[in-house]
Amino acid sequence: MNNRRQEILYTTSQLMETQGYHATGVNQILEASGAPKGSLYYYFPDGKDSLTEQVIQQTAERIESRIRLVMAEHDDPATAVAAFFVTLSGSVEAADYASGGPITTIALEVASTNERLNAACHAAYGRWQQAFADKLLAHGYPEESAYPLATLIISAIEGATILARSQKSVRPLHESGQQLARLLEATRP
Amino acid sequence: MNNRRQEILYTTSQLMETQGYHATGVNQILEASGAPKGSLYYYFPDGKDSLTEQVIQQTAERIESRIRLVMAEHDDPATAVAAFFVTLSGSVEAADYASGGPITTIALEVASTNERLNAACHAAYGRWQQAFADKLLAHGYPEESAYPLATLIISAIEGATILARSQKSVRPLHESGQQLARLLEATRP
Repeated sequence: MNNRRQEILYTTSQLMETQGYHATGVNQILEASGAPKGSLYYYFPDGKDSLTEQVIQQTAERIESRIRLVMAEHDDPATAVAAFFVTLSGSVEAADYASGGPITTIALEVASTNERLNAACHAAYGRWQQAFADKLLAHGYPEESAYPLATLIISAIEGATILARSQKSVRPLHESGQQLARLLEATRP
Repeated sequence: MNNRRQEILYTTSQLMETQGYHATGVNQILEASGAPKGSLYYYFPDGKDSLTEQVIQQTAERIESRIRLVMAEHDDPATAVAAFFVTLSGSVEAADYASGGPITTIALEVASTNERLNAACHAAYGRWQQAFADKLLAHGYPEESAYPLATLIISAIEGATILARSQKSVRPLHESGQQLARLLEATRP
């Protein structure tokens, strides 16, 4: 892992989480990261798109680890899912509601306009869904229930983060996590 | 209601739903709507922001009516909520996954950068939440349950639409709607 490469990825990730893919230009990334133009194209020969693709992939891995960590910390799936929403709300609040949902804006911007970046977002959501589904499967939820439940959990994470940022309040995240926990309890095998 | 004014609002709404607020410039709106520059500033003296604010307000009303209509069509709240996700998936599919979640991209883009437009998005989400909460309250769900359930429903609508667009499949919407229906059945008063 090269420091300059990591610095460019981190800066891009921060900028795109706050303002989206379209609004983030290569020049702003260079300015904010302090990297010379040559180094950006050295590490990311295709420029903005290969850089963004790697940002999405790194984010996918980071969030997946975080989900698996919280799922491992709590035996009961309902408790674990509610706890994940609490840790998420902590991050969104700590960032003063300026970030949260690191790939959501990108996902919407590229869904119909950039096949390569859309595929990367699709893969990221798939990894997160699998991490929740694995927890449910391990606790005896049948496959035909575990996957749709995991889909709802990912949907709620995405949507409640948008509401939290819009309302500048963690309440939508807390409420969504608690209601999902009720659902997991009610459908416990 | 003036036709030219409506045409400008409609064009802006379409462009922003597909590509977001930042990527949509006044010149593109003029070009796509065929309106002369003077008429845009005549109807929307503050330019892009007052235009966007009215797009958000119109969208808020339109979606609220749609929610209330579907809630009125089905007596059982669980059936009604699942049916809303089915009608939503129909629209997203009909638009070839290029639109859906008409204010989501705007909401994320403006959350930390534009207080006026953020307030408009916040108000829109509030109206939609109230429409679902009213259905639950009318069927005896207590307030302390109806509002958090409505928050989860709105979160799931937002999030599942993002997943559907990313996956180019209605499956996340159908699955989320069905799981929410299970929750509403399990918590029925």
